[in-house]
Amino acid sequence: MSGLSLLLNGMLLFVPVAVVLEHANPSGHVWIFIASGLAIIPLAGWMGRSTEEIASYAGEGIGGLLNATFGNAAELIIAVVALNGGLYDVVKASLAGSIIGNVLLVLGVAMLAGGVRFNVQNYNALAARSQAAMLTLAAIALMGMAVFRSQVGTGNAKLDTDLSVAIACVLLAVYALNLCFELITHKQLFVGEGGERKTAPRWSLRRSLLVLAGATVLVAWMSEILVGAIEPTTHSLGLNSIFVGVFVVAILGNAAEHATAVLAAMKNRMDLSLSISIGSSVQIALFVAPLLVLLSHIVGPAPMDLIFRPGLVFSVFFAILITAQVAGNGESDWLKGAQLIAVYLILGLLFFFAPTLPLVPSGSG
Amino acid sequence: MSGLSLLLNGMLLFVPVAVVLEHANPSGHVWIFIASGLAIIPLAGWMGRSTEEIASYAGEGIGGLLNATFGNAAELIIAVVALNGGLYDVVKASLAGSIIGNVLLVLGVAMLAGGVRFNVQNYNALAARSQAAMLTLAAIALMGMAVFRSQVGTGNAKLDTDLSVAIACVLLAVYALNLCFELITHKQLFVGEGGERKTAPRWSLRRSLLVLAGATVLVAWMSEILVGAIEPTTHSLGLNSIFVGVFVVAILGNAAEHATAVLAAMKNRMDLSLSISIGSSVQIALFVAPLLVLLSHIVGPAPMDLIFRPGLVFSVFFAILITAQVAGNGESDWLKGAQLIAVYLILGLLFFFAPTLPLVPSGSG
Amino acid sequence: MSGLSLLLNGMLLFVPVAVVLEHANPSGHVWIFIASGLAIIPLAGWMGRSTEEIASYAGEGIGGLLNATFGNAAELIIAVVALNGGLYDVVKASLAGSIIGNVLLVLGVAMLAGGVRFNVQNYNALAARSQAAMLTLAAIALMGMAVFRSQVGTGNAKLDTDLSVAIACVLLAVYALNLCFELITHKQLFVGEGGERKTAPRWSLRRSLLVLAGATVLVAWMSEILVGAIEPTTHSLGLNSIFVGVFVVAILGNAAEHATAVLAAMKNRMDLSLSISIGSSVQIALFVAPLLVLLSHIVGPAPMDLIFRPGLVFSVFFAILITAQVAGNGESDWLKGAQLIAVYLILGLLFFFAPTLPLVPSGSG
Repeated sequence: MSGLSLLLNGMLLFVPVAVVLEHANPSGHVWIFIASGLAIIPLAGWMGRSTEEIASYAGEGIGGLLNATFGNAAELIIAVVALNGGLYDVVKASLAGSIIGNVLLVLGVAMLAGGVRFNVQNYNALAARSQAAMLTLAAIALMGMAVFRSQVGTGNAKLDTDLSVAIACVLLAVYALNLCFELITHKQLFVGEGGERKTAPRWSLRRSLLVLAGATVLVAWMSEILVGAIEPTTHSLGLNSIFVGVFVVAILGNAAEHATAVLAAMKNRMDLSLSISIGSSVQIALFVAPLLVLLSHIVGPAPMDLIFRPGLVFSVFFAILITAQVAGNGESDWLKGAQLIAVYLILGLLFFFAPTLPLVPSGSG
Repeated sequence: MSGLSLLLNGMLLFVPVAVVLEHANPSGHVWIFIASGLAIIPLAGWMGRSTEEIASYAGEGIGGLLNATFGNAAELIIAVVALNGGLYDVVKASLAGSIIGNVLLVLGVAMLAGGVRFNVQNYNALAARSQAAMLTLAAIALMGMAVFRSQVGTGNAKLDTDLSVAIACVLLAVYALNLCFELITHKQLFVGEGGERKTAPRWSLRRSLLVLAGATVLVAWMSEILVGAIEPTTHSLGLNSIFVGVFVVAILGNAAEHATAVLAAMKNRMDLSLSISIGSSVQIALFVAPLLVLLSHIVGPAPMDLIFRPGLVFSVFFAILITAQVAGNGESDWLKGAQLIAVYLILGLLFFFAPTLPLVPSGSG
Repeated sequence: MSGLSLLLNGMLLFVPVAVVLEHANPSGHVWIFIASGLAIIPLAGWMGRSTEEIASYAGEGIGGLLNATFGNAAELIIAVVALNGGLYDVVKASLAGSIIGNVLLVLGVAMLAGGVRFNVQNYNALAARSQAAMLTLAAIALMGMAVFRSQVGTGNAKLDTDLSVAIACVLLAVYALNLCFELITHKQLFVGEGGERKTAPRWSLRRSLLVLAGATVLVAWMSEILVGAIEPTTHSLGLNSIFVGVFVVAILGNAAEHATAVLAAMKNRMDLSLSISIGSSVQIALFVAPLLVLLSHIVGPAPMDLIFRPGLVFSVFFAILITAQVAGNGESDWLKGAQLIAVYLILGLLFFFAPTLPLVPSGSG
């Protein structure tokens, strides 16, 4: 863990590098993109760390709520900045990529790394099934919106927006009920992970708040630089922006947390590992995505709807389908990890080979 | 239960109200629709009650068969009347709505209501999985027909009809095998519910038959009034007829039975609750729907096929998918109930927001 | 078993019959098709038998590898011959048909035949789930290619081919890892079947190799005759070639092995039965199909891609979905068998009723 911390702190150097590049060589988009992207990783890590410290002061219930609400704050900031810039396609791609990445890449690497050390690893199947059903619910919402679009056509943006707001409210309500289930009525089910995560605070509350504020400001700054560089970078590399959104931008926001999930699996703490990986996907799908739909009425040039491109919807659906199948019986082995990673690779290849798509601000489309 | 009976019997007042409205104010379609719809609920309840009484005279095997065959008789009558009026879209929407409503709304409310009282409730996972597989089989048939249509096009109504009849026969055969499984070869699996449902008869056989005959006639009469009012009602309320079919007409036929499923869950009899809710869906999908396809060759202006609108097919598929996921492990809690209800809400919003569709008799389409 | 052997050996008579018909009456395509098809069944059986003998000489690990690699060699030969003749649609249809047939027809008949004798049969749920997840992974690859095609259009054959090669490599890598899992790191999980299948050799190694060589040559010859007769046969019977590929050609390659799976179930050896049926599907989907994509760059008139017709993709997906549902809990009964067979029937009807499609060499489409 110490080596990982050192690496993460070292990556903070990319913060000044990104700023210098942005001003010294504004046409070097690819380098600006890389530097700002790498800078976000340790900053997001510090945001998560300070949130946990603050949560440890707040007591079990409120603490869990804080962790659950701000756990993906870095991703939320990147998305809000992109939304503000009108990059709806990138926002949707990075949301989908985050859902996919957590259940396929993070959980896959965790099961593989853990399974290489331990022949079979066990975890609470009930909690895993409950979270998988949450994801299926979100997938149904996305799939339903896509079918709606295919049947109704693109004529009526007002309709799309109203429907998206209504469904976003349902998703947020279910997320609130889920928190209520995890933190209040059935907390004994999740006690394994709760015990791991909730430790005595090591920082003073003042220090935690300062770190959180500082990291938040810096993440917002780096996101501004990153988002500005996405279009020219994808253009000069000949990549399509959806691929970059799904497989690059999506990873930056919680790379640090991903490391924790893998390390936990290697210590045979599969419950913690699953609660981070599947839990992050649940949070993105049922909290961050619907929240962004609502926020887009305030911050964006136009409201964002919940209609994702068919390729994204199918990827999310199948990622969730195989995760539910693989994680439904309370046991994991290295082959399961390899299967999840293989699905991630297959989806990555499909998006990589898709022809370059124009990156136009797509309004409510 | 007594309070519920009282309420149901009170609702019988809507029978004369519907008749009076129909003759006194033929242009007040909305009120006629509401009154006839509400009148069907207690009548369907009496049909179910009298069928159970008759079944209790017939001995276990035949009794189970009678219950399984006539358990959704009210829905069958409504559908036949609508078929006779050429309202194919309404029939299909109400069939799909019935399948969806039973596994999402009824089972959802039952799990929620039961889960609020009991932390975790248990039921026979084997029976639930077997019934869920039945529903998946039916979903595959509907999905297959939709893919067939999308590939083959709409040119050949004869082909659609012949294929629909063939697939309806397969579904009916599987349903017959399912009855054989439940009532003969593996009845011990279902003994829990059987025990609950099969009590000593309380009515004389004569009384039971008279009540059944009377309720059947009245249901047919009310259905006639209801079906005639659907089109003008949806028109004057600005709703689309599919929404009304899926979420209104579908509920009338077995609202009384739904109450039983919820009450059973509140008494921690989850096996009975699941056998009513999932069992009703199985009956609609594998018995009522294919039977209507065959009947349509006799009673309708044109044969009905099994090609449902894409929105209906997707709704049925996803409703069944999440039900199988949620009900597959033999345990339920309030969050599972909330998840099912949320999916029902999401589907409801999607249909509600879909633009008004013209309600034309669609023949074999 | 002895009666079965006799029947199979008797069917060897179709080898000379096919050759004679081919030369005496070249326009009797239907009879040539039937004779060569029936001739392949016992030859494939002898190929499988001799492979097992050779495997028993090679020791457990390498033996398992040989069985796993050459277990579907007959199907591979038929496919290579068809590929060479440019019949891409038939190759794809027979691959899909093989995947579907093994999990629906073979497993269905096995569960039905076993379930009629034994009330409930048990098997290792862990191994079944692991194999089902493998199939889901392959279904995701096929589904992803179909979505890719629907989004990207048919403009760019080079793109389709490159993507297909990349995904084929991922599938082959996962298959290799699967073998590693089954034969090395977790072989204790599969010891039930391993024990059944690996017996002391009964033939000399020389005899085994001679039988294998002879049967291989004859299968290749019969395949040549069969493939040449497919187009005129489907034409004169008014069938569409996809139906013939999915439901006729697909069955020839491993009909003999299918009999073994059913016989095993009737002896209550469900682990062996599942390992043959689901295992064959895994082998076709993750080894034979991707291998053919690579081989097509050498033997075919044009490379074959992994883009299957929507009807095939949906069939494979739903076949795998219901198999995972039915085989996921370690128990089987006759109704499960009937359910699988019913799904096979439904898919068969859908393909049978689809209008006759032109059988043009479709290149990379």
